[in-house]
Amino acid sequence: MTAAADALDLPAAMAEAAREVEAAIDRLIPEVRLPEARLADAMRHGTLNGGKRLRPFLVLRSADLFGVHPDCALHVAVATELVHCYSLVHDDLPAMDDADTRRGRPSVHKAFDEAAAILAGDALLTLAFEVLAGPQTHEDPHVRCRLVADLARAAGPHGMVGGQMLDLIAETTTLDLGEITRLQRLKTGAMIAFACEAGATLGKADQPHRHALAAYAHDLGLAFQIVDDLLDAEGEAGVAGKPVGRDAERGKATFVSLLGIERARDQARMLADQAARHLDIFGPRAELLRAVARFVVDRKA
Amino acid sequence: MTAAADALDLPAAMAEAAREVEAAIDRLIPEVRLPEARLADAMRHGTLNGGKRLRPFLVLRSADLFGVHPDCALHVAVATELVHCYSLVHDDLPAMDDADTRRGRPSVHKAFDEAAAILAGDALLTLAFEVLAGPQTHEDPHVRCRLVADLARAAGPHGMVGGQMLDLIAETTTLDLGEITRLQRLKTGAMIAFACEAGATLGKADQPHRHALAAYAHDLGLAFQIVDDLLDAEGEAGVAGKPVGRDAERGKATFVSLLGIERARDQARMLADQAARHLDIFGPRAELLRAVARFVVDRKA
Repeated sequence: MTAAADALDLPAAMAEAAREVEAAIDRLIPEVRLPEARLADAMRHGTLNGGKRLRPFLVLRSADLFGVHPDCALHVAVATELVHCYSLVHDDLPAMDDADTRRGRPSVHKAFDEAAAILAGDALLTLAFEVLAGPQTHEDPHVRCRLVADLARAAGPHGMVGGQMLDLIAETTTLDLGEITRLQRLKTGAMIAFACEAGATLGKADQPHRHALAAYAHDLGLAFQIVDDLLDAEGEAGVAGKPVGRDAERGKATFVSLLGIERARDQARMLADQAARHLDIFGPRAELLRAVARFVVDRKA
Repeated sequence: MTAAADALDLPAAMAEAAREVEAAIDRLIPEVRLPEARLADAMRHGTLNGGKRLRPFLVLRSADLFGVHPDCALHVAVATELVHCYSLVHDDLPAMDDADTRRGRPSVHKAFDEAAAILAGDALLTLAFEVLAGPQTHEDPHVRCRLVADLARAAGPHGMVGGQMLDLIAETTTLDLGEITRLQRLKTGAMIAFACEAGATLGKADQPHRHALAAYAHDLGLAFQIVDDLLDAEGEAGVAGKPVGRDAERGKATFVSLLGIERARDQARMLADQAARHLDIFGPRAELLRAVARFVVDRKA
């Protein structure tokens, strides 16, 4: 990580973090005895799939700002990615987004079946909390308990799952910009905020530093989602690795349908710049996190 | 609880515990703003449904053996029941057991829809960990972390979810008695064991007392499952509150299909007696837990 960080080569740093996270997930998912091997296989399919690993990268880099031991940060990074992956596995189900592909491969219910996808998602979510509660995550159990509670809040009914429910409702109701913003704040913002603030929790950061990361996460999360909507509106399925054009097809209100492509893109850039400025308090040490904000608006998938 | 416990009136004690647990769940499930009210409604439907609350009762009574404050035990009881209820919500889904009713009412995906049932289950599982990690569960964060890790293991791929995967596989494969026993050990045994041992964890029990509860849970869990199979084979849907006769219909190997009704019933009684004897170390204080073992084999639903 250090060499890449020094050179401010974000793609290399993200790729290295992704390799670390994938290796850790690979070690973690149990090689259970047959016939539950099918469960472990479905869990692997839903996690070891070449994702960007943005959220774990945010955990690792925010923890690094406070000198947290990388092994501790890696545990939290893995737990965060497990929750993200579980949400994608369930989100792709026929009763939800009904997506046959994910990152250019069959989604879990296509590669296995619906029951295996439901159970694999359940297992990944459960495993995330086992990882966080373990002594290797942090020597201080107060920190581990806070991480468990924070992750549960970010992923639960007042966070990601609440946002997914709103998202389903959005398919049959016309939401305005304020409602869409709130939806995205829950659906993607809460987990991105957890990822950024986890470093502060691990490092027992003071309030100004924690708040700076929270503000960064707030703007980054919204920029990320606006770009997601842009990619859906403009993207090519081959590049995105998943079906595109689905929002418009369903007549679903998004940032793009409400703002138009140009204004949505301007808004994303403005939010990314603002996100980067929140990190002034960290000086040059936060340069990779600033680069993440630029990456989020420039990405093609 | 005290009056009922003194009189050894198990039904009254269980009913009182069930009321406490339901009131706590009712307070807990967020009254979120519209339109996610649908998520909260589905979570309520999947939890506040007149269940026996056997697992929370086991938590409360095992904690009482060690003088644990009832408020702490109640938090763990609630978390345990949330996990149990989530598993039923997902288990009833069309891709899993495809059950239209549960406890005499429409299952969550029937009362709402499949997406709401998937998300409500996810939310209940997530909420369970938030409850456990909170300071009201126990003043010592080591205890809270252990409970989180233990619940995750009991509910995860090496526990309940692994058992559910095996159960699905059992519909197309003929399992022998050893495999069925292992399946049930995972599917129902792990969570019953968690419930019984949680009291020991909360009370920082010594090894002999913890082991006694673990042995009790081991035999109780198996007896419970054998009776479940008997109820499915012999029961009336109106009494069970869910469809019956489904195992035989699907040609699925169960304790009943492998042992026959009489031997299965004998086995359940023998296990229940053995479970009760493991509690000798606690003397008369464990009388309600002994009564639970009798209740489990005598129940009609």
